Amino acid sequence: MAKGGRKTIRIGLLGCGNVGAALSSLLTDPVGQATLIERAGVSVELVAIGVNDLTKRRSDQSWFPSHLLTKDLVGIVAREDVDVIVELLGGIEPAGSLITAALESGKAVVSANKALLAERGVTLERLAESKAVDLAYEAAVAGAIPIIRTLRESLAGEEIYRVMGIVNGTTNFILSKMTAEGLAYDDAIEQAQRLGYAEHDPSADVEGYDAAAKAAILAGLAFDATIGLEQVHCEGITKLRSIDLAYASKMGYSVKLLAIAERRGDGASVRVHPAMLPLSHPLASVDEAMNAVFVEGAASGPIMLYGQGAGGMATASAVLGDLIDVARNQVAGTFRAPPRRHASLAAISMTDLVSEFYLSLDVADEPGVLAKVADVFGSHGVSIRSMEQSGLGDEARLVFLTHAALERDVAATMEALNGLREVDAIGGVIRVVGDEQGDR
Amino acid sequence: MAKGGRKTIRIGLLGCGNVGAALSSLLTDPVGQATLIERAGVSVELVAIGVNDLTKRRSDQSWFPSHLLTKDLVGIVAREDVDVIVELLGGIEPAGSLITAALESGKAVVSANKALLAERGVTLERLAESKAVDLAYEAAVAGAIPIIRTLRESLAGEEIYRVMGIVNGTTNFILSKMTAEGLAYDDAIEQAQRLGYAEHDPSADVEGYDAAAKAAILAGLAFDATIGLEQVHCEGITKLRSIDLAYASKMGYSVKLLAIAERRGDGASVRVHPAMLPLSHPLASVDEAMNAVFVEGAASGPIMLYGQGAGGMATASAVLGDLIDVARNQVAGTFRAPPRRHASLAAISMTDLVSEFYLSLDVADEPGVLAKVADVFGSHGVSIRSMEQSGLGDEARLVFLTHAALERDVAATMEALNGLREVDAIGGVIRVVGDEQGDR
Repeated sequence: MAKGGRKTIRIGLLGCGNVGAALSSLLTDPVGQATLIERAGVSVELVAIGVNDLTKRRSDQSWFPSHLLTKDLVGIVAREDVDVIVELLGGIEPAGSLITAALESGKAVVSANKALLAERGVTLERLAESKAVDLAYEAAVAGAIPIIRTLRESLAGEEIYRVMGIVNGTTNFILSKMTAEGLAYDDAIEQAQRLGYAEHDPSADVEGYDAAAKAAILAGLAFDATIGLEQVHCEGITKLRSIDLAYASKMGYSVKLLAIAERRGDGASVRVHPAMLPLSHPLASVDEAMNAVFVEGAASGPIMLYGQGAGGMATASAVLGDLIDVARNQVAGTFRAPPRRHASLAAISMTDLVSEFYLSLDVADEPGVLAKVADVFGSHGVSIRSMEQSGLGDEARLVFLTHAALERDVAATMEALNGLREVDAIGGVIRVVGDEQGDR
Repeated sequence: MAKGGRKTIRIGLLGCGNVGAALSSLLTDPVGQATLIERAGVSVELVAIGVNDLTKRRSDQSWFPSHLLTKDLVGIVAREDVDVIVELLGGIEPAGSLITAALESGKAVVSANKALLAERGVTLERLAESKAVDLAYEAAVAGAIPIIRTLRESLAGEEIYRVMGIVNGTTNFILSKMTAEGLAYDDAIEQAQRLGYAEHDPSADVEGYDAAAKAAILAGLAFDATIGLEQVHCEGITKLRSIDLAYASKMGYSVKLLAIAERRGDGASVRVHPAMLPLSHPLASVDEAMNAVFVEGAASGPIMLYGQGAGGMATASAVLGDLIDVARNQVAGTFRAPPRRHASLAAISMTDLVSEFYLSLDVADEPGVLAKVADVFGSHGVSIRSMEQSGLGDEARLVFLTHAALERDVAATMEALNGLREVDAIGGVIRVVGDEQGDR
């Protein structure tokens, strides 16, 4: 097992899509391999690649190790000469069982599987700790951005107030196009599909489910708590209209789909929804398919990490960073203990949340409408900060920004507005996110 | 030494200015200490604080451990019951000797000392490795921003093309004020001094020396090389005029003092100078005293880390992150091997560098001047990309952007321009930094 005086760490890879193929190339390209040994001080050897289809073309690169491909995934995990399993299958099963078996047999695991980690991460962490092996998953959230390591290590002693992230590149691309080019949602998604940023069935992205899994993982690390996926309130971007994004721009805001984990007292609000951010906020200018995570800590102040959230090479880069860390630990005979999940933070119900809101209403263009509408806001305790009216023939559009208000009061306001004869439609309803929230 | 089943790691602190006082509070505040044990899984105890002046007031907080203060710094390092030395003295000596003694005796060291690490970092790393103890210095560059850990760990397997950082908050504050409010350099620096962002003698900041030390540290980590401070070309911001910053804004650029480490072939260009960045670049909107570091890697793509680069609490947060890491390693009986410094990259001479340039000239407002000036550019092989002329009574100002040109050609151009009767003064000369540079 010795190679140039160093122990060689042997890798079994499960799954070989974009990320797996990129990683295989990084690990087997002779120049890259030499660099790795020299720079990172570890020697790693890819010994097997488990896939479901042996015939699929994986890479154009001449050094792609086709001879390592096998359909026997269980066999790879069982191999005694494999030190580390890299799981890039995605989905809950068979990934969950394979990782469990790997950890059980004392193998370290590197995974990029957000869905599995959001659902079973804490159980897998406990298993890893009991076996004294590493479980690393930097690539599960925001691709190449080192947010997991930052939360686990750099900020291990930090009291974190809030984490807010643009963690889904597909929706950020769509919102950027709707904002910059005034595209309708349907046209923007079609463009995203054409360019390979969106799947044929984009629902996991546009409904916010992908971001919700990442929110659960980030919240768990930020607050050292067990945060279940069922604690994450999830709203996607399918109801957003480009006209509302245009109003938001005009008012000095940018609309982003945010994954938010916010501590309030003994509880936490973990949620995914479109949000209006002041243009001066560092997240506001994160455009196209880029990702970024903004962390607010008591001592550290604000920290933002920005980079590519997806893509084969960028995600493989994060996997490789983990792999080197795990390999170094194996050579040193140690492992990184997972965070103590000391608390099950109570989920703060969405109806108890306080936010400022953007609201747009299509109304009949006749005298007295604004008075009636304003009365509905007032009688539900929702205070209006600003209002703008624009004419649309025999209709008018009223655009409101509210002061901070309870979700349930805003919901009741909207229900009452819907019942007004003069209100033809409630257009956009978007929460405004600023610097004022969370426990300080 | 056991406390609740865990080993307690005992800390000796050297230096107690803003950062030291903040760290002392974080470590001894009872709530913070309990959180630390629970969250990070380590118990750390501050056992001594070495200072030069016992009478100075350090903190307003009731739990500040005044009883730990001592003037015997050498004694703290020699104490057998101290596991980790935190060095916050700054400067080369006595910090260097104290850290050396600490490492010699097998103590781990956490330091925030950029000057010392730029000058003797590699020697100290070798000593730490030979003693199998940690030497951590996240706080030495860009305060709360986790750039050291990101380069050492997350990007350990990455081929890094270029690192560019806004790593000096004082100069970024001054440039922001000059840009946003049109302040003259002298007025901006006075404001920075009044607000506590600049020292009474600001030369370490405004001449770029502080940034140069950080550039050397970043370059060393990015390229796993020994980069000496003498390899860093250093220009400050003292010659910048707000009129040139205003022209830059109008042309779609932002002017920042950048620390740049760029690989070219077998060499590296490591330098600090003012640079014009396109407004679309993520670094361009990093304003006021904030810091940010932009890393470009082969697989990872662009990554940016943003946050507070200075301030007692923010810097203490970075020290605390290191301290927890070191303490965890001590409990596990391991340490993190420093990067292999496998190469002494040849410094690329500044005169061999290729950049686009911004140049402004005050010239006599008479016919034929532009032709003469253009002829000087052309005869030195410097190609003009765009020119703008504005009248100033009997003078005119010519503002040029060049295509990529050799530094030495631009220098020769300026010398020749200086010799022209029609040129009254050469105003700003600023390099344009874009996406096109470095080895790809």
